[in-house]
Amino acid sequence: MARSDGRNDDQLREIKLTRGFQVWPAGSVLVEFGKTRVLCAASVTEGVPRWRKGSGLGWVTAEYAMLPSATNTRSDRESIKGRVGGRTHEISRLIGRSLRACIDLAALGENTIVIDCDVLQADGGTRTAAITGGYVALADAITWLGAAGRLADPQPLSCSVQAVSVGVVDGRIRLDLPYEEDARAEVDMNVVATDAGTIIEVQGTGEGATFTRSTLDRMLDLAMAGCADINALQLAALAQPYPGELPTPKVARP
Amino acid sequence: MARSDGRNDDQLREIKLTRGFQVWPAGSVLVEFGKTRVLCAASVTEGVPRWRKGSGLGWVTAEYAMLPSATNTRSDRESIKGRVGGRTHEISRLIGRSLRACIDLAALGENTIVIDCDVLQADGGTRTAAITGGYVALADAITWLGAAGRLADPQPLSCSVQAVSVGVVDGRIRLDLPYEEDARAEVDMNVVATDAGTIIEVQGTGEGATFTRSTLDRMLDLAMAGCADINALQLAALAQPYPGELPTPKVARP
Amino acid sequence: MARSDGRNDDQLREIKLTRGFQVWPAGSVLVEFGKTRVLCAASVTEGVPRWRKGSGLGWVTAEYAMLPSATNTRSDRESIKGRVGGRTHEISRLIGRSLRACIDLAALGENTIVIDCDVLQADGGTRTAAITGGYVALADAITWLGAAGRLADPQPLSCSVQAVSVGVVDGRIRLDLPYEEDARAEVDMNVVATDAGTIIEVQGTGEGATFTRSTLDRMLDLAMAGCADINALQLAALAQPYPGELPTPKVARP
Amino acid sequence: MARSDGRNDDQLREIKLTRGFQVWPAGSVLVEFGKTRVLCAASVTEGVPRWRKGSGLGWVTAEYAMLPSATNTRSDRESIKGRVGGRTHEISRLIGRSLRACIDLAALGENTIVIDCDVLQADGGTRTAAITGGYVALADAITWLGAAGRLADPQPLSCSVQAVSVGVVDGRIRLDLPYEEDARAEVDMNVVATDAGTIIEVQGTGEGATFTRSTLDRMLDLAMAGCADINALQLAALAQPYPGELPTPKVARP
Amino acid sequence: MARSDGRNDDQLREIKLTRGFQVWPAGSVLVEFGKTRVLCAASVTEGVPRWRKGSGLGWVTAEYAMLPSATNTRSDRESIKGRVGGRTHEISRLIGRSLRACIDLAALGENTIVIDCDVLQADGGTRTAAITGGYVALADAITWLGAAGRLADPQPLSCSVQAVSVGVVDGRIRLDLPYEEDARAEVDMNVVATDAGTIIEVQGTGEGATFTRSTLDRMLDLAMAGCADINALQLAALAQPYPGELPTPKVARP
Amino acid sequence: MARSDGRNDDQLREIKLTRGFQVWPAGSVLVEFGKTRVLCAASVTEGVPRWRKGSGLGWVTAEYAMLPSATNTRSDRESIKGRVGGRTHEISRLIGRSLRACIDLAALGENTIVIDCDVLQADGGTRTAAITGGYVALADAITWLGAAGRLADPQPLSCSVQAVSVGVVDGRIRLDLPYEEDARAEVDMNVVATDAGTIIEVQGTGEGATFTRSTLDRMLDLAMAGCADINALQLAALAQPYPGELPTPKVARP
Repeated sequence: MARSDGRNDDQLREIKLTRGFQVWPAGSVLVEFGKTRVLCAASVTEGVPRWRKGSGLGWVTAEYAMLPSATNTRSDRESIKGRVGGRTHEISRLIGRSLRACIDLAALGENTIVIDCDVLQADGGTRTAAITGGYVALADAITWLGAAGRLADPQPLSCSVQAVSVGVVDGRIRLDLPYEEDARAEVDMNVVATDAGTIIEVQGTGEGATFTRSTLDRMLDLAMAGCADINALQLAALAQPYPGELPTPKVARP
Repeated sequence: MARSDGRNDDQLREIKLTRGFQVWPAGSVLVEFGKTRVLCAASVTEGVPRWRKGSGLGWVTAEYAMLPSATNTRSDRESIKGRVGGRTHEISRLIGRSLRACIDLAALGENTIVIDCDVLQADGGTRTAAITGGYVALADAITWLGAAGRLADPQPLSCSVQAVSVGVVDGRIRLDLPYEEDARAEVDMNVVATDAGTIIEVQGTGEGATFTRSTLDRMLDLAMAGCADINALQLAALAQPYPGELPTPKVARP
Repeated sequence: MARSDGRNDDQLREIKLTRGFQVWPAGSVLVEFGKTRVLCAASVTEGVPRWRKGSGLGWVTAEYAMLPSATNTRSDRESIKGRVGGRTHEISRLIGRSLRACIDLAALGENTIVIDCDVLQADGGTRTAAITGGYVALADAITWLGAAGRLADPQPLSCSVQAVSVGVVDGRIRLDLPYEEDARAEVDMNVVATDAGTIIEVQGTGEGATFTRSTLDRMLDLAMAGCADINALQLAALAQPYPGELPTPKVARP
Repeated sequence: MARSDGRNDDQLREIKLTRGFQVWPAGSVLVEFGKTRVLCAASVTEGVPRWRKGSGLGWVTAEYAMLPSATNTRSDRESIKGRVGGRTHEISRLIGRSLRACIDLAALGENTIVIDCDVLQADGGTRTAAITGGYVALADAITWLGAAGRLADPQPLSCSVQAVSVGVVDGRIRLDLPYEEDARAEVDMNVVATDAGTIIEVQGTGEGATFTRSTLDRMLDLAMAGCADINALQLAALAQPYPGELPTPKVARP
Repeated sequence: MARSDGRNDDQLREIKLTRGFQVWPAGSVLVEFGKTRVLCAASVTEGVPRWRKGSGLGWVTAEYAMLPSATNTRSDRESIKGRVGGRTHEISRLIGRSLRACIDLAALGENTIVIDCDVLQADGGTRTAAITGGYVALADAITWLGAAGRLADPQPLSCSVQAVSVGVVDGRIRLDLPYEEDARAEVDMNVVATDAGTIIEVQGTGEGATFTRSTLDRMLDLAMAGCADINALQLAALAQPYPGELPTPKVARP
Repeated sequence: MARSDGRNDDQLREIKLTRGFQVWPAGSVLVEFGKTRVLCAASVTEGVPRWRKGSGLGWVTAEYAMLPSATNTRSDRESIKGRVGGRTHEISRLIGRSLRACIDLAALGENTIVIDCDVLQADGGTRTAAITGGYVALADAITWLGAAGRLADPQPLSCSVQAVSVGVVDGRIRLDLPYEEDARAEVDMNVVATDAGTIIEVQGTGEGATFTRSTLDRMLDLAMAGCADINALQLAALAQPYPGELPTPKVARP
C-alpha cells in the first residue's frame, strides 16, 4: 500500500533549513519537513539561572509552542488557558535535553541560550523538526558568541544533533510520518541521534497496540539512516555564509 | 532632523501583504511594515459562543500575541507566566473591535471567525500592522465562507479597515513609527480608519508629556492620509487570485 | 430628543469630591459623577519597584476594580476567577498613565504611590471619575509626603488632571454619559486633559459604527469644555482644609 | 489597665447600620463598628447553582474581601495575586454558614442570594461586623423578594443573626476588640448568636498561649451579652422604612 | 439510639500511632482513628522564611491535603484544579496554629519544621487525627534536631497537643464522629487541648441548627475527657524507642 | 564495581504488592520496589468524559503525584504552586497510555477508571513501580465491575502490564536503579512490557552522554527479562483471594 504523498517507506519528506529568518536572535532558523514549519530561535542571555550561578557552567534550555493557527483545526492558546499543557511540557523538555547532549557547558561559560521552537504550521513530526532546526540555530548562536569573545573555550559543540520520527502504519515501517499517517499509526517512535551515529534519546510507543522486539530493531535501523541523511543537510546549511549581516545588540542582562 | 531610516516625516515604511501564508486557516496573511512582521490568520468555527446562540448573528474576535524571539531582547512567554498581560489584552480587544466595525454580523450567520495575530518580528507598529493584515485575512475567510455556501447573506463586509501609528518625535509629527522612534516619542497615536475616510478608533497618548489640540489635529491629518495609502495596498493585494488552491477542511465543530 | 435625566447635551452630572473618606491612606477621596461612585485612595510606600531602584525617581501606578455589587446585575469577583480581565487591565493602565503625566517623578524621590480606584457604584463613566478623583487623592498624598519631609523637591505636581466621557447617542453629541446612554452610544470617547487646556489622552471608538472627522472635532470641543468645569470643582475641593487630622502611620517598608 | 479608646471591658464600640447604601442590590447595608466599616450587599439571582437544581430549595452564600486601602498598611489585591487567600476563604465560609442558619431554604424557593461583604476600612472585628450587617442586608433582600411575589413561603427568616469578638488582652477579658487590641490578644474568640440566645458558631483560639475552661466560660458570657445588644440595634434599624425607593430591576438570569 | 459502630457516646474509636512510617523525614507518623488514616511527616529545613530571618526564632507550619482516593467517592486533585480550596486552607492553618501553641520558637532556633498531613483514608475527624499525629511527628523531629545539636535550647516543647471532635447526632452528644455521623450531625465541634488540661482552640458550628449554651458546655466536657485519653496514647507511643535507625541526611538548605 | 545495595547488575529489588490497601476504591494496591512505595488506587466512575459520550467505549486514565515528604529533601506541593509540573504531566500520561494498551475499552463499556498513583516514599523507579502496581489495581477494579454486572463484555483485559528501569551506571548496564544510581546514570531507560513479551513503551535517554546501538540492545535484553520476573509476581499477587470484603458503595455519578 503506497503512502498518500507518494514517498517510499524509507524516504524523508523534503527538508529545508533557512538560517537568519529573524533579525534579533543570535540564531534563527526556519526548518521545514514537508508542510511542517517550525521557527527555531536561539537567544543569548548573559549569566545563568540562580541555581547555577558561580558554577562556571552555562545553560541551554528550550521552549516549544504551537501557534493556534498552525493546526488543521484551530487550537486554543495556552496563555489564555493559563497553563502549559502536558504535551508542550514534554516536548520542551525533550528538545532541551537533546541539545544539551552536544554541548560542553563549561566551554559555553556562564551564558544562557534559550531555544524557542514555535510551530508555524503543523503536519506531523514537529518535535523532530524542532530538534533538527534547533541544533542549527544553536550552532549559529555559538558562532555569534565566539565572534563576541564571550565563550570560555573556542568550540563547545562536540557533535551535531538531529531527529526523525518512524512508525508502523498500515502494517509497514515508515520514516518521517506526516499528520495523516501519525494519527493512525500503530507504533510511533522518535529517535534523536548524533553525527557520530550514537543515540541521545529513543521514545517508542504502541498506540493501542504493542510491538515486538524485532519491529523495534527495524524501526531503529530506519531512523538511524534517516538521521544520517538529515545530518548531511544540516552540514550543508551551516557551510553557507550567514545570510545578511550578523545580528547585533541583543544580549539581555538578567 | 532626519529620520534614521531616511524616510520623510509623512512617509510609510515599505508594506507587504502575503496572502495564503499558511495552508490550514481560511485566511492567512503575513503583513510587513518594514521589519515588523505579523502573521494574521482567520480561522472559521461553526456556531457562535454560548451567549450568542440562537441570535442569528455571527461573531468575530481577535487574539494578539508576540513570539518570545520577536523582540530585540527576548521576552518571556505568557503561557509560562500563566496569564495574559494587560498590553496583550488591550491590543487583542482593539483588533477585534476594529474588525467588527466593518462586518454585518447578521450577514455572517452563526459562524465565528477568530483572527490570530502573532508577531514574528517586532519593530514598532505591531498593532496597526495586525489590524491592516487582519482585515485582509478576514476578507479571504469571508470569500471562503461564501464559496462554501455558509453565509447568511452574500456580502457581509461593508468597508475595509486599516490602521497606522503617528507620533511626535524630536518635536516633529511623523507617520508610522519604528521601535527606535516609538520608544522616545513624546506623543503616540494609533488611528483605525475605513476606505470611506471615516474613523473607527483613535487612541492618542502623551508619553510623560501633554499635547495641544492643534497637534492632535495635525496628527489626525497625517494618519488619515496614511490610512488611505494603506487601503490602496490592501485593494491591490486582494485583487490578485488566491495563491495556491483554496484551503479545504478546517471547520471545527464546537 | 431629551436626555432621560433631563440634562442638556453639554451638561455634566452633579459631581462631588469627598476628601478624607478613609483614615489610613495618605489621600482618600470619594468621587461621585451622579450615581457613579468611586473610592480613590493614594497609598504611599517607601522605595520603588526593583527595576527602578537607585534611579532617584519615584513611581506612581494605579489599580482599578469594581465591587461585585456595584453593577446593576451582580458581577463575579476577579479574585475568584483567578485573573484580572482585559477591561480592568486597560483602565488601570489608563489611570496610571494619566496621573503620571502631571507629576515630576524626580521631585517625588524614591517613593511609590499606588492609586486604588474601587468602584462602589457604577452608572457609566467610572474610568473618568476615577482619574478625576485619583488626581485629588494624589494631590493629598503629595501634601502629606511634603509635610513628612520626604519629597526630593517641594512641588512635584506640574498640572492638574481631569477626565470626562463624551459620545454620540440618538444622533446627538452628549457629555458625561450615564450607563443607560453609554450602552447604546454609537460613538464613545474618553478625554483626559490638564488645567493648561492640553490633552493627556484621547480614546474614541465607534461602537458598531464609524464616525467622521467633523464629529470627532465636535466631541473634542465638548469634552475640553467639560474638563475645564471639572477642574474648577477639583480646585474648590482642594482649597478646603483637610477634613479631620492628617493620617499618620501608614508607610510600608517593602 | 484602661482600654486605649476609653471603653469599659464589657462595652461595644459605636455601631451604625446604614440601609440602602447602594441602589442596585436588593439589600445594601454599610455597617460600622467604630472605625471598622463593611459594605454588605445582598444580590438576588433567579435560580440556584447546578448541584441544587430541581430541589425546590434556595441558596445563600457569602463572599468577603478587603479593599487594598482598607488596612493601615496597603495590602495587595487577591485578583492580581491570582488566588484567594486562606483567611479570605475562611471568613467567607463562616459568614455564609452563619446566615444560612437563620433561613428556611425551602421557603426561599429556588432563588440565590449572594451576600458580598467588602471591607472599606478595617480596624478589627471585620468578620463579626460583616455577619451583623450581612443579616440586615439579607432581611432587606427577603422583603424585596416577598414584595416581588417570588418567595415560596411568606417568612423564610426564623431568627436574627449577630456576631461579636471577645478576647483576653493585658490579662483582661474584653468585648469587641479593635485592631490594636486584637494584634496583641492572648486569646481571641468570635461568637455568632441568634436573638433566641442560642449559638450558631464559636471560634476561640489561643494566640501563642492556651486558656482554661473558666476563661472560656467568661468570654462566652461577655460575648452573649454583646450579641443581645447588637440584636437590639439590628431591630431598630430594620424598624425604619426603607430609605429611598425600593431597588428595581436587578435580577440576573443565570 | 445506638451508634452504628457499637460504641458508647463517650467512647473514642481505636487510635493507633505508628512512628517511623517513612524513612526520609525527621519525624513520620501514621495516625489512625478507626478507618481514618493520616500520614503526618515533620520535615526540617535549615533557616526560616525571609520575613523571619535574623529574628533568632524558628518556624513551624503545616500543610493538609487529601489523596483523591481517600474518600468514599473519588475527589479531584487540587494541583490539577490549580488552586487550594477553602477547606484545605482552613485546616492547614488550624493544624499549624495548634502545634505552634506547644513550642518555644526561640528555643527551636532558626530552623523551620513543616508538618505535612496527608490523608490516606478519610472517615471523619481527619483534622483532629492530623493534629494528634502531627504532635508526635513534631516531637520526633525535635528529638532529631536535639541529637544533631541544632536546637538553641534543649527542650522547646512546653506541652503536648491533641484534638478530638464532638457533636450532636440523633439528639445525643457524641465523641469522635465517623463520617456517617458527621454528615448528619446537628452540631459539630472540634477541640484542641493540651496535657495541662488547657484549651488551644474551640470551633463549634450549628449545621442548619443552633445550639444552647448548656449543650456547648456538655460538648466541652466530653471533648476534654477525650483529649486526656488521647494524650495517654501519645505518651505511650513516644515512650517506645524510635523504630529502625534515626533518619539521616535530610536537611535542605533554602 | 559492586552495587551499593549488594545486588547483581541483573537483579531486581525486593518487590511487594499489597492489595486492598484502602477500603473505598474498587482496586487499591501498595507497590514496593525496595524503599520506593507507591499507592495505586483504581476508582470507578459511571459514565465517560464528555468527548466520549455515546461512543460505547470506556476510558482509563492515570494521575501521578508525589507526597512532599516522599523525597529525601522535602519537595513543594504542586497544589500550592498552582500548577502541575512537566515531569508530573509526563509520567501521568505514560502510566495512562501504558495501562490503556492492555484493555479493550469497548468491553469496559461506558465506565471511567482513574488510576491514582501517589508516591508515599521515593527511591528511584517510581514510574515503573506505578505502572506495575497500577495494573494490579486495574485488574481488581475490573473484577469488581464484573461482579457488579457493569461490564459490556466479561473480560476486557487482553494482557498484563509491567515496567522496569534499566541504565548504564559506572560503565555497567544495571536493572532497576535506586535513586542513588539513577542520579549518576549515564543512560537511563524505562521499558513497559506485556506478559506476551511485547513492548508497550521504550524511553531511553543519554544523560549528558550518548549511547551506542549495541548498548541499547543490551539494555533492552535486561529490561525484558526483568519485566518477565515482575509479571510472575503480579500473577502470584492476583492469585490470592481479595483481602477483606469487596469494597461496596463507591461509584460516583458525574
